[in-house]
Amino acid sequence: MADQPLPSWNEGPARSAILDFVARVTVEGGPDYVPPSERIATFDNDGTLWCEQPLQSQFFFAFDRLEELARKDPTLRERQPYKAFLERDIAAIHSLGKQAAFEVAFATHSGMTADEFATIARNWLMTARHPKLGVPFTQCVYRPQIELLSYLRANGFKIFIVSGGGIELIRAFAEDNYGVPPEQVIGSSVRLRFEGSGGRADLVRLSELNSFDDREVKPANIALHIGRRPILAFGNSDGDLAMLRYTLAGNGQRLALLLHHDDEEREFAYDREFRLSPLVEALDKAAEYGITVVGMKRSWKTVFPDGPPPS
Amino acid sequence: MADQPLPSWNEGPARSAILDFVARVTVEGGPDYVPPSERIATFDNDGTLWCEQPLQSQFFFAFDRLEELARKDPTLRERQPYKAFLERDIAAIHSLGKQAAFEVAFATHSGMTADEFATIARNWLMTARHPKLGVPFTQCVYRPQIELLSYLRANGFKIFIVSGGGIELIRAFAEDNYGVPPEQVIGSSVRLRFEGSGGRADLVRLSELNSFDDREVKPANIALHIGRRPILAFGNSDGDLAMLRYTLAGNGQRLALLLHHDDEEREFAYDREFRLSPLVEALDKAAEYGITVVGMKRSWKTVFPDGPPPS
Repeated sequence: MADQPLPSWNEGPARSAILDFVARVTVEGGPDYVPPSERIATFDNDGTLWCEQPLQSQFFFAFDRLEELARKDPTLRERQPYKAFLERDIAAIHSLGKQAAFEVAFATHSGMTADEFATIARNWLMTARHPKLGVPFTQCVYRPQIELLSYLRANGFKIFIVSGGGIELIRAFAEDNYGVPPEQVIGSSVRLRFEGSGGRADLVRLSELNSFDDREVKPANIALHIGRRPILAFGNSDGDLAMLRYTLAGNGQRLALLLHHDDEEREFAYDREFRLSPLVEALDKAAEYGITVVGMKRSWKTVFPDGPPPS
Repeated sequence: MADQPLPSWNEGPARSAILDFVARVTVEGGPDYVPPSERIATFDNDGTLWCEQPLQSQFFFAFDRLEELARKDPTLRERQPYKAFLERDIAAIHSLGKQAAFEVAFATHSGMTADEFATIARNWLMTARHPKLGVPFTQCVYRPQIELLSYLRANGFKIFIVSGGGIELIRAFAEDNYGVPPEQVIGSSVRLRFEGSGGRADLVRLSELNSFDDREVKPANIALHIGRRPILAFGNSDGDLAMLRYTLAGNGQRLALLLHHDDEEREFAYDREFRLSPLVEALDKAAEYGITVVGMKRSWKTVFPDGPPPS
């Protein structure tokens, strides 16, 4: 089995849908052939390529930085929304709503240059550990998805990450962990200001949001960054629904996949109640829209990289 | 000579600077080695890769569309800035200033979907001819630059276009003419709105500007789209100066090039007086910043693809 594609995927409808789709679009001269330049695949990150529970990694990253800021300005400990972050009050963070919570997280790193931020992000990822799984965040990626990315690349696909998370944080690990270079990462971003005085030529991060890359903004950012409609997209929440629908609405063969976290034993089970990134409409209308639901429990033999090797 | 790199470039300081730079960054184990993933090169488009006189192609594209709009709404013929466009009044268009003039050009295609616009742009490029050179716009690319793009790619560089022009118009020809796929084109853009009702899932172009990709915005968009600082950049106006300086300010070997249009006989001679995209500060401070000026007249054996073959 080890030389079969997608060894960590159980046989079943999800794996078959992927293998059938890739076979169809890569047969030269076949009716569904898609040239390599148009084999664009877009993946959400949090909850699709790695674990997003109990919070997206973005927040754990912000916690550490906020501690530093609070040492300089202790009044932050009494002011919301900072108080919730400093006390790791997950319920309070959830209650902020996704965009507001992310804006706080983004704002924690304003005033520094883009290069300084990238260094901080890389250093944090090397040392920080997931609070529940007890491993580095980079070990919280899903093994079946790493296999899927490799399989698609081997079949001429170009992979883009399209995430609501901060674009630079994802870029700090996407190349090493997913094989996706920075220029193929799309995410939420703050505005940058060029500063070119006195021999410097740097970009400074402002606290102003440039783009919150979620829901209807995802297809718009795909058009801005990629300029082509994907033929395959993979998400896990209502935040990905517009991207999945945009993908399916193009001509020719299309595949849209939706990961359903229904595996409390090996990972987490959640959908409607996860306020930071709920899965409601995409699940209810998956059949109507032609979206393939991938139940983690039945579809994946192994979830994490250090799980038992596929038999 | 034909199997030498850059056959349409004359021997001299510009060609030597390019060959020396590429040699240094590609010698594995050498002190200046740069891994392929970081060999990012950014090129301006109008006036750097193809002709921008008497106006950038964007405007000729807008003229044809405005004629259609004026047939439906004849009052446009009496209202500025449309009047200037409809009368091809180049002096009046220049007097608008670059961003204002471009905003008119961008606004001519609002309300249609991104896919419809891409089709219109491709069709226009297949039929439109340069008013002075009398050839299709796609024949107004510079042969020495096409050679340079190929040479850089052969040496492991990834090429991005970073243009003040409309991103979709460039994408409509960049792959066929430059070998640069849409996802490696950065340009000015309008906002897009996702429309997903009634089985549709499309992006509609709004008349609101998303980004005018000029001057200090170019480095910010490079960070947004690429996430890495280029090691080589090529421009031709003050609109490129921030990009050139941003490129030079990184660590290690860097090369910034500035095309100077000083060749009235074979192309055009202009710099300070071209109001839509003047070249003043970048020329005056090139030596101070370490920018290599490429005089077209002396540096290029041939300018256009149908010029005499390199001897």
